[in-house]
Amino acid sequence: LNRQIAALPTTIFTVMSELARAHDAINLGQGFPDTEGPQDMVQAAADALLDGRNQYAPLTGLPELRAAVADSNARFQGLEVSAESEVVVTSGATEALAACLMALIEPGDEVVLIEPLYDTYLPMVRQLGGVPRLVRLEEPGWTLPREALAAAFSARTKAILLNTPMNPTGKVFTPDELDFIAGLLSQHDAYAVCDEVYEHLTFGTPHVSLMTRPGMRERCLRIGSAGKSFSLTGWKVGYVTAPAPLASVVAKAHQNLVFATAPNLQRAVAFGLKKDAQYFRDLAGDMVRKRDILSAGLRGVGLDVLPCDGSYFVMADITPLANGLDDVAFARLLTEEAGVTTIPASAFYDPANGTPPRHLVRFAFCKQDTVLQDAVARIERWA
Amino acid sequence: LNRQIAALPTTIFTVMSELARAHDAINLGQGFPDTEGPQDMVQAAADALLDGRNQYAPLTGLPELRAAVADSNARFQGLEVSAESEVVVTSGATEALAACLMALIEPGDEVVLIEPLYDTYLPMVRQLGGVPRLVRLEEPGWTLPREALAAAFSARTKAILLNTPMNPTGKVFTPDELDFIAGLLSQHDAYAVCDEVYEHLTFGTPHVSLMTRPGMRERCLRIGSAGKSFSLTGWKVGYVTAPAPLASVVAKAHQNLVFATAPNLQRAVAFGLKKDAQYFRDLAGDMVRKRDILSAGLRGVGLDVLPCDGSYFVMADITPLANGLDDVAFARLLTEEAGVTTIPASAFYDPANGTPPRHLVRFAFCKQDTVLQDAVARIERWA
Ligand SMILES: CSCCC(=O)C(=O)O
Ligand SMILES: CSCCC(=O)C(=O)O
Repeated sequence: LNRQIAALPTTIFTVMSELARAHDAINLGQGFPDTEGPQDMVQAAADALLDGRNQYAPLTGLPELRAAVADSNARFQGLEVSAESEVVVTSGATEALAACLMALIEPGDEVVLIEPLYDTYLPMVRQLGGVPRLVRLEEPGWTLPREALAAAFSARTKAILLNTPMNPTGKVFTPDELDFIAGLLSQHDAYAVCDEVYEHLTFGTPHVSLMTRPGMRERCLRIGSAGKSFSLTGWKVGYVTAPAPLASVVAKAHQNLVFATAPNLQRAVAFGLKKDAQYFRDLAGDMVRKRDILSAGLRGVGLDVLPCDGSYFVMADITPLANGLDDVAFARLLTEEAGVTTIPASAFYDPANGTPPRHLVRFAFCKQDTVLQDAVARIERWA
Repeated sequence: LNRQIAALPTTIFTVMSELARAHDAINLGQGFPDTEGPQDMVQAAADALLDGRNQYAPLTGLPELRAAVADSNARFQGLEVSAESEVVVTSGATEALAACLMALIEPGDEVVLIEPLYDTYLPMVRQLGGVPRLVRLEEPGWTLPREALAAAFSARTKAILLNTPMNPTGKVFTPDELDFIAGLLSQHDAYAVCDEVYEHLTFGTPHVSLMTRPGMRERCLRIGSAGKSFSLTGWKVGYVTAPAPLASVVAKAHQNLVFATAPNLQRAVAFGLKKDAQYFRDLAGDMVRKRDILSAGLRGVGLDVLPCDGSYFVMADITPLANGLDDVAFARLLTEEAGVTTIPASAFYDPANGTPPRHLVRFAFCKQDTVLQDAVARIERWA
């Protein structure tokens, strides 16, 4: 068997979700909302099933969804893109990421990654023969170490994989940071795979896409997710926006990985993407309230909560409650004894890249207010 | 960019479908039915959307679908498998194939492939660093050249990729052929990725899975497709059945490629897989009638039709009508002048592996009877 794949641990999200179920714990581990997305979209998906278009969608997606993605790029990022040649619909952002990396990487190419990172990044880069070059954000402020980042680039750099708003930190990269990254990309003639699935989930600091920065239009593959933008994570509809010469290669990777995505879900997402700015403001407004409920609660029980300007997630420093336990032991104990499940942050670091922080856990706050309050109350009782 | 991916031609299915649209031709190219699948399944998928389970499905699939796949293995192949640990649900058979190959192949591993072959096989094997060893079936009978097959195996063979019922030939491998292959796999300690998406579409010769042959239970990864079994190709729900140690590695590949598949479609497929043997007999019965309508029609206009015992496809020898044109030129002309689209068979051969046959085109007969009759009438008028 392929040793790299066989050696991968079961994803931490599955491990912790199973532990949560076993202990009837409130699951603030895996990042998915515990309420449904917009009812009109769900109804649109159901209606679309019933009118006879259930055979293969076109490889790059239904024209109506590609048009909606292009329109959304224009409305929210001021990016003019061709629906015809610069959008590829995928089966979720995970597949989008796999297809983008497959389109770019050849064995030996270096890919700059920023720790802490989402758990499919490293295995996919390695699987394709890429060589990860890791740069670690500095807590507690999740500061980008610019010198280290510059040093991670070389003549062999093919791409950076940039996630903003960022999972698991909640960091939103600033225009200044993006321009610094843009400079490195131009200088090293490299690409950026931009995982922007939380593009509509920022709390004050607006999301800026690297693709909008000077010189970056031709270098970026920007990934969006209907699951995250519409609280329908199960649908697994994603999209890549990229300049035509890149998009056509992403389409070829997609052809070999999945080929096409269910037409009824694509049509419902096309419908959803037409929602006005108020829908997306409300989505973010809901989420900032949830962040605040959870953060205040966690501070109240004595945890240090790190800054969080976007995404579904916030990191907390467990030192005040951990009694010397590391993040993994603490997360297990918190599930078993307090009945609240989190993700130990060390899971978001490469075990081969030095010692990860062992004093942080990630909480998902994309849950009902009462669930968050209940979780805090449980920790309080336990602590 | 990745040169191998970038160099791939646009898939022949897209090229020919676009040509069909441009010329208002009857599209007997890409293999998808032109009628809907069972209305009760479509309704089940719509109902499932509306009851609030639209967040991430479990990585390996919903328990109810895994149970239905296990049950279907038992009913139709006499295979007892664990729904818990031996079934992985994927986003269609294309993803299943990618995940299986990713789970098996390490750079330098050899993979035995049988020409003519489906168009994602070669690029996926190469992308993963695998070395294809091609064996060509001999027309007109699509005979398996046993000596050449044995010679294609070596100490470096990791797997064979076996498609039965076979696209594009319509060949159904016999138990005797399967036992010959099984012998080679045992002898060389190799695996088989069994693409059996047309398992319910055979016309007389029953489908036998390699996984049922002696010694093969532990060596096979068997791929099924709801799209093909229920005439709902757009849904992209597939499943892998494999011994637990293999299935767990396939699941890890799936985790990095897509992660999960839409719950409502999974639930509808679970419902569909409970259909009785009569449903599947009727499906095959419909298809054999269509094969016969098309085959008789093509013979009537002077084409030689090759044997076809399963799948959606039949190959025809164009020599009598081609006037010296090769398959690509003929397929183009047939679209432009006769208004009937096919796939030139050379698209199913590795351009790097010697001269492909240039006298065959593939017809898809998974279309309404009247459409097939109309197609034949158009060719007749033209010829
Ligand atoms: C695809 S499962 C993980 C969901 C998620 O984005 C997260 O929890 O980080
Ligand atoms: C996935 S598009 C091709 C459909 C098919 O199986 C074929 O036409 O061979």
